[in-house]
Amino acid sequence: MKKIKTVEEFKELVSSIEAKGYKKPLGFGIAKVDRGQLNYDLILQANFPVINWDENFGSASVFLEALVKSGVEVDFSGSEFVSSINKKFVKFAYKAFYSFLDSAIGDAHKNVQVINMLKWISEDIKLSDYKIVFIFEDDAPKSVESVYLKLYALSSGKAGLRSLNLNGAFGVLPNVAWSGREPIELEWLRVNEIELKLLGEYPTIDSVDKFPRYLSHIIPAQNTRILDSSKVRMGAQLAAGTTVMPGASYINFNAGTTGAVMVEGRISSSAIVAKGSDVGGGASILGVLSGTNGNPVGIGENTLLGANSVTGIPLGDGCIVDAGIAILEGTKIAVTSSQLAKIKEVNPDFTYKTSDEIQFFKGLELSGMNGIHFRQNSTNGMIQALRSQREVVLNEELH
Amino acid sequence: MKKIKTVEEFKELVSSIEAKGYKKPLGFGIAKVDRGQLNYDLILQANFPVINWDENFGSASVFLEALVKSGVEVDFSGSEFVSSINKKFVKFAYKAFYSFLDSAIGDAHKNVQVINMLKWISEDIKLSDYKIVFIFEDDAPKSVESVYLKLYALSSGKAGLRSLNLNGAFGVLPNVAWSGREPIELEWLRVNEIELKLLGEYPTIDSVDKFPRYLSHIIPAQNTRILDSSKVRMGAQLAAGTTVMPGASYINFNAGTTGAVMVEGRISSSAIVAKGSDVGGGASILGVLSGTNGNPVGIGENTLLGANSVTGIPLGDGCIVDAGIAILEGTKIAVTSSQLAKIKEVNPDFTYKTSDEIQFFKGLELSGMNGIHFRQNSTNGMIQALRSQREVVLNEELH
Amino acid sequence: MKKIKTVEEFKELVSSIEAKGYKKPLGFGIAKVDRGQLNYDLILQANFPVINWDENFGSASVFLEALVKSGVEVDFSGSEFVSSINKKFVKFAYKAFYSFLDSAIGDAHKNVQVINMLKWISEDIKLSDYKIVFIFEDDAPKSVESVYLKLYALSSGKAGLRSLNLNGAFGVLPNVAWSGREPIELEWLRVNEIELKLLGEYPTIDSVDKFPRYLSHIIPAQNTRILDSSKVRMGAQLAAGTTVMPGASYINFNAGTTGAVMVEGRISSSAIVAKGSDVGGGASILGVLSGTNGNPVGIGENTLLGANSVTGIPLGDGCIVDAGIAILEGTKIAVTSSQLAKIKEVNPDFTYKTSDEIQFFKGLELSGMNGIHFRQNSTNGMIQALRSQREVVLNEELH
Repeated sequence: MKKIKTVEEFKELVSSIEAKGYKKPLGFGIAKVDRGQLNYDLILQANFPVINWDENFGSASVFLEALVKSGVEVDFSGSEFVSSINKKFVKFAYKAFYSFLDSAIGDAHKNVQVINMLKWISEDIKLSDYKIVFIFEDDAPKSVESVYLKLYALSSGKAGLRSLNLNGAFGVLPNVAWSGREPIELEWLRVNEIELKLLGEYPTIDSVDKFPRYLSHIIPAQNTRILDSSKVRMGAQLAAGTTVMPGASYINFNAGTTGAVMVEGRISSSAIVAKGSDVGGGASILGVLSGTNGNPVGIGENTLLGANSVTGIPLGDGCIVDAGIAILEGTKIAVTSSQLAKIKEVNPDFTYKTSDEIQFFKGLELSGMNGIHFRQNSTNGMIQALRSQREVVLNEELH
Repeated sequence: MKKIKTVEEFKELVSSIEAKGYKKPLGFGIAKVDRGQLNYDLILQANFPVINWDENFGSASVFLEALVKSGVEVDFSGSEFVSSINKKFVKFAYKAFYSFLDSAIGDAHKNVQVINMLKWISEDIKLSDYKIVFIFEDDAPKSVESVYLKLYALSSGKAGLRSLNLNGAFGVLPNVAWSGREPIELEWLRVNEIELKLLGEYPTIDSVDKFPRYLSHIIPAQNTRILDSSKVRMGAQLAAGTTVMPGASYINFNAGTTGAVMVEGRISSSAIVAKGSDVGGGASILGVLSGTNGNPVGIGENTLLGANSVTGIPLGDGCIVDAGIAILEGTKIAVTSSQLAKIKEVNPDFTYKTSDEIQFFKGLELSGMNGIHFRQNSTNGMIQALRSQREVVLNEELH
Repeated sequence: MKKIKTVEEFKELVSSIEAKGYKKPLGFGIAKVDRGQLNYDLILQANFPVINWDENFGSASVFLEALVKSGVEVDFSGSEFVSSINKKFVKFAYKAFYSFLDSAIGDAHKNVQVINMLKWISEDIKLSDYKIVFIFEDDAPKSVESVYLKLYALSSGKAGLRSLNLNGAFGVLPNVAWSGREPIELEWLRVNEIELKLLGEYPTIDSVDKFPRYLSHIIPAQNTRILDSSKVRMGAQLAAGTTVMPGASYINFNAGTTGAVMVEGRISSSAIVAKGSDVGGGASILGVLSGTNGNPVGIGENTLLGANSVTGIPLGDGCIVDAGIAILEGTKIAVTSSQLAKIKEVNPDFTYKTSDEIQFFKGLELSGMNGIHFRQNSTNGMIQALRSQREVVLNEELH
């Protein structure tokens, strides 16, 4: 193929490729992979400089065609396809992207930048550690590379939290020792322990896990702070302005924030916290893996979880859970009829029987409601719900 | 200028400089600065080998004169002054300090040691990464360098906690990625992400924050232990003998201990804990940024905060807050009249009405008092205050 | 001595050595030691590639004889003996182990592998940083090397938790700064601070502690995960399948798990958790150093400690402590007579008086019992114990 020198020619090329009936991928990207020290074929980590998620289908076409032209038989029948790449692949893509080379800088044409860099790399070294990954269907991931692509999609914010199928990811990812960003097979450490220790070359191990850390792969927004990299797992999503303190906090994969949030507690897998909220020191938001019976917990905007509080139910906007108390699905909560009236003001759809002066609700019955202050009466130990003093901005269009 | 060969001559030099009317600085020091990888003029971190706080005015005079002689126009009109230094500056200071060179070793004449080392460095490399910082008035800091000088003053114990004006420090400090002690501009990572990841050279990022860690700049006392460097922010102050465990602990800047304290919980910004006290696993001492309405929390001596307890009020000496309970400013606390009498024994100034068998106080009303045991009655949920079993040593001179 | 070329000859050699009356050691091993940067004789850390605990007495004999033959006067009268080794020592051991050299690979003949590697090392460098350590009696350790040998015995699982005498270990170990795995004398940092900071060579300090981290010395089982190395101290023991999350967890030395356990909270020194149990986010198991009056806390199988709960008493199998509550030795706990009957079903030895509808127990009285659900009634604040819904598998042979 000749170099494609104009954008029009590029469009024609893409059309001609698309006419062949290639499947459009949901996501794709080229990664440098880290291989096992003992087992060369075991992929320990995939490093994506750029990922594409429901976008850039022209580049996808080019890459698919480049694979075919470089001798790879692309299998479109599965939910994903992972392939090594070679010099021919890079050459084809480079020629196809030729008209974009000059403008591929900064945020523009990042796939072109990747190919440009790979062309330069391929002049000196073999491309055996570079792989291209396509996800065609959001099925359970079947490869380390596709798990990483999905984790990148979540952590980059290109895919929404809870929107991707990660079933079986724990089975796919190998458990490795991490020395900084470098994954090391545990078995390699075992085989070499005597030599490494006697020579004084045993590596510093920062963690042992199937997942890497968020900050090993993701560059946060300029106003986001993560005071300890161990506190955020890859696959978490942090909106700009979020601060994660180092005390007792943790944000698991497939969990995180959708606005600027102060995080000093735990956001378990599947839990999501909206803007302006504050997860106090040591507060726990339970996840579907740890005590909510599969009912994922979302926390609304401007909600405050007090220090060492525990929340097992979704909360709406403008709520307060007092320091040190636990609100679980089965917790019995007392509400006075006058407070019920005030609570209804910010929860127009809320219905209840107005019989007794004090009514009891289970936590689950109050889940997702706005403007509730959960507290424990310190004179009689009763868990109560009141209308909170925090602002709730109702969407008038909805009501 | 000739070399100053005797201490007398040095004193004469200092007098002659002081006669010029230079302002005495509150603090000063020479730092090696880390500059932005993209933006050379952006200071990311200032590393002070030595700081001076309300001391060593002779050295200050020499440094100010050295600046003037090396061609710098020193502005005494502001609250602080930051300047680059050059070979001439170092030469002047070296000659001025000449009589101290031999004895400048260990803890003696540290400013002289700095100049001696800079003289040696300046023979090979330019001094463009070295800056001198003077703080003349304790106003809101205006530069990264002066923020760092104040953080050093706090963390070295040369200035008392809560004694310095750090207003606006968050606005002055840039938010950076930390790879070990090295600060990296987030934008530099963004610009170079593709190259770094494809070449396998993406750095290990340990945190993203405006502040560095305490242990990146401060050498603790021989009997102080910090089991995880992420747990103590630069600007915290730790008295000798303090132990910071790695579970759920955190000590923010402008917070810390004034004696040997066991820390397994959170000491929020502005909170101070005195000797012999124990901040239990997961315990939270609220700070002015997180729920005490600007009323900074001090914890007295020999006080015990139980595991997962929360304290939002100042406590005196010899108190106990039981595991798992929260004592906030508004918490209603029951005290029996007999316990009130015992509590008054260790709080002679405490006045209360002796009417009912049980009286209720708000947390705020009991703040700062000695010898109180806060507990929750497990048979009826009532939060109660008793005279604690811990020793309270009253200062007899005061009463 | 000639090379020992058959296993029979080796056995004869061992018998002839044992006939000399050497004491059998409880534990022994050869370590590479890290020495003080200022104080050469101060041992900062001992790195054992292999340890022997109540095993491999033939190797012990060879090593003792090799010491004697290399000119060391071995003192068998104390509880432990630490010695430097030299080329002669290695040569003797090498010849003695000669018949095993070919098969010393992988898990086989690890002491032989150590000697083989030392022979290779000794061709180029002096052996001054290698030491051999024997522990003859389980007395209070007297050297850094013997403390490390005991910590290795615990963390490798070769010795049971709580089974070893570590009295005075805190006094024996020096407090050092850790830069990755490298221990650094704090005084060395102090002496070199000016030079290191001005040259930009100040090291990254990860912690300051007497103990290293577990992952600096121990390779966990393939299915064990430790998401943050700071969370597990050397001397802890983790059974295969244990997961340690990074939020608020911590496992101290001489504490840990005896089966696959999910750890998101604190397991204090001397506390032990059995298989299938779950230490929830921020949960605290108190240790003998922190509030249990010397009564070490064991947690049985399949027991759940809720988020931010606190446990100060031992628990049996199949228990639940609800999120956010504290069960201490003195906590008064209400149990109804019908629940008492159900609790007795899984605690056949439990005796109680069946008088009132509700009886109160102190936490200590319910310690170690199976199948108990501790909760706080949210309508009246009462701490209650019920028969839990978790499975308890009673050992029928015992009852």
